[in-house]
Amino acid sequence: MPIKIAVDAMGGDYAPLEIVKGAVEAAKEYNISIQLIGNEVQIKEELAKYDTKGIDIGITHTDEVIEMGESPAKALRAKKRASIVLTVESVAKGESQGLVAAGSTGAAMAASLFGLGRLPGIKRPVICCTMPTTKKPVAMLDGGANSDCEPEMLYEFAIMGRIFAQLILGYNNPKVGLMNIGEEEGKGNELAKSTFNLLNSKKEFLNFIGNIEGRDVFTGDCQVIVCDGFVGNVILKTAEGALTMVSKMLKQEYKSSLYNKIIGLLSKKIFSGFKKRIDYEKIGGALLLGVKGVSVITHGSSKAYAIKNAIRVAKEAVEKEVNDKIVEMYEKSMKTVD
Amino acid sequence: MPIKIAVDAMGGDYAPLEIVKGAVEAAKEYNISIQLIGNEVQIKEELAKYDTKGIDIGITHTDEVIEMGESPAKALRAKKRASIVLTVESVAKGESQGLVAAGSTGAAMAASLFGLGRLPGIKRPVICCTMPTTKKPVAMLDGGANSDCEPEMLYEFAIMGRIFAQLILGYNNPKVGLMNIGEEEGKGNELAKSTFNLLNSKKEFLNFIGNIEGRDVFTGDCQVIVCDGFVGNVILKTAEGALTMVSKMLKQEYKSSLYNKIIGLLSKKIFSGFKKRIDYEKIGGALLLGVKGVSVITHGSSKAYAIKNAIRVAKEAVEKEVNDKIVEMYEKSMKTVD
Repeated sequence: MPIKIAVDAMGGDYAPLEIVKGAVEAAKEYNISIQLIGNEVQIKEELAKYDTKGIDIGITHTDEVIEMGESPAKALRAKKRASIVLTVESVAKGESQGLVAAGSTGAAMAASLFGLGRLPGIKRPVICCTMPTTKKPVAMLDGGANSDCEPEMLYEFAIMGRIFAQLILGYNNPKVGLMNIGEEEGKGNELAKSTFNLLNSKKEFLNFIGNIEGRDVFTGDCQVIVCDGFVGNVILKTAEGALTMVSKMLKQEYKSSLYNKIIGLLSKKIFSGFKKRIDYEKIGGALLLGVKGVSVITHGSSKAYAIKNAIRVAKEAVEKEVNDKIVEMYEKSMKTVD
Repeated sequence: MPIKIAVDAMGGDYAPLEIVKGAVEAAKEYNISIQLIGNEVQIKEELAKYDTKGIDIGITHTDEVIEMGESPAKALRAKKRASIVLTVESVAKGESQGLVAAGSTGAAMAASLFGLGRLPGIKRPVICCTMPTTKKPVAMLDGGANSDCEPEMLYEFAIMGRIFAQLILGYNNPKVGLMNIGEEEGKGNELAKSTFNLLNSKKEFLNFIGNIEGRDVFTGDCQVIVCDGFVGNVILKTAEGALTMVSKMLKQEYKSSLYNKIIGLLSKKIFSGFKKRIDYEKIGGALLLGVKGVSVITHGSSKAYAIKNAIRVAKEAVEKEVNDKIVEMYEKSMKTVD
């Protein structure tokens, strides 16, 4: 039996059009089954655009959708048959092995947590993000699931991040660093200081290299970056903002004279090469780790290419048994004295 | 009497060479007096390189220097005549009206706080940074003085940031935004939620526009960005890291073929135009606000141009009576009901 991935067909700015397109491409390219959850009429209309012979795409119909602006908690109580709820249910019932959601991050997170439950030992699920660097991509967590954290939570993030960096990003013995505002021991706020001591007490086991700073995110020298969800979310969006600023400023410069305009045209290929390297669409979303099941949450503005890649990440997480490996490592960590 | 600025001649990676050079340039350009604090022999050697006729540069000799790696608290106890201590003393005694320090940020901050004391009403001094945007620069605070904050501290930051944005950055009625991980009310960690309520209770007085996110730092639409010193420092360094990554990746692309190399050469002027717009050296360091005196702390890697601009910022803060205006606004804020 091929792996089956459940996809919320109604989530995100371009649903169902781009979601269905990405799902068809993924089914063809990765030899997997897909279950699309959402409005059957609309989904069928989209599916009719493609040659779907030989691929396995099922549909679970529902009319309910949680919109981006809705409060996740309220919406989940009110809409028992929301597409994201049924998508999670498909994994919870074992009909699918993983899920992909492109709509409201809060709703996808809450639905996954309530529908799948937590992995044994893990207190809080975490959003594990893949960050571009000048070398290979690295993992950063928490990307925004937990605004207020305890040191023990960051310790769990370190374990989950290491497994992710090993199995999905392909590092042999990834280095774990604690996001802080200085490299020396004793730096930072209360959370950072206590977390440093906790991670340092299992230094060898975690391959903990100590404190790192904001500028170290993009060097690729540290492969698992641990922080609370408030700081992680600020990092994600600050990096996005800085890159957008660069792109806007360069566009302004290239428009400022005829000479610059010509150079701009001649540079197009160079910039597209560069853009590919920091392409969030290729990365394929973030894994929600710590829940009993594979849940990939991707940007609300995802188009087909991003959806396809998110499905690939879900498939890899299933194949490589990321969750089993997390539980194994967590249990081992409890017995290990460094 | 012209304004006199005390400059720690021994602080930073290029001291005293670049510090003295920047001081001479500032004295000439801004028509101010400078007091250089540090090793007299070395300073005189540097001064001898320039035509200093008609400008007023004094020297206060000391042999003691606090190095970058030292613990600020310990070093300040041990080295009573450290150059940064005497630089602060010059302002405390009224011999100078403001100071510039390029060495250890921690030592400069601690020396300023202990040597100058706090402004009436202000609980904690704050590092007020100037951030580049696609429009005009904006203020972000705290840049790293206070790792653990209370809502009342962020309220003070908002007041100090508004005065800075008005008097130094030239905004008429700058907008204040709270750094958070979502725009809606009720988002974020405990600190952000409580601070939102506090700032919102003086919404009109502060021109508080609500929550902003990491990506809003660089748009220029919010002119005073308020956050705790941990988050602010992470933002500063993440932005720095993202910009460094872009620059490295583009360099790699431009080297990847002969065609790209030629385009790279033809693009040089375009990039230098762009670089000028995000030039930290031009910004001239960060103001430590909330202390009784003008204290400008600049990057340890500052060269003459950065030092000159830091001296300009100190001069402007003195001329525009930033501290008096902060006290005034703070007192007014206590009486204001929105």
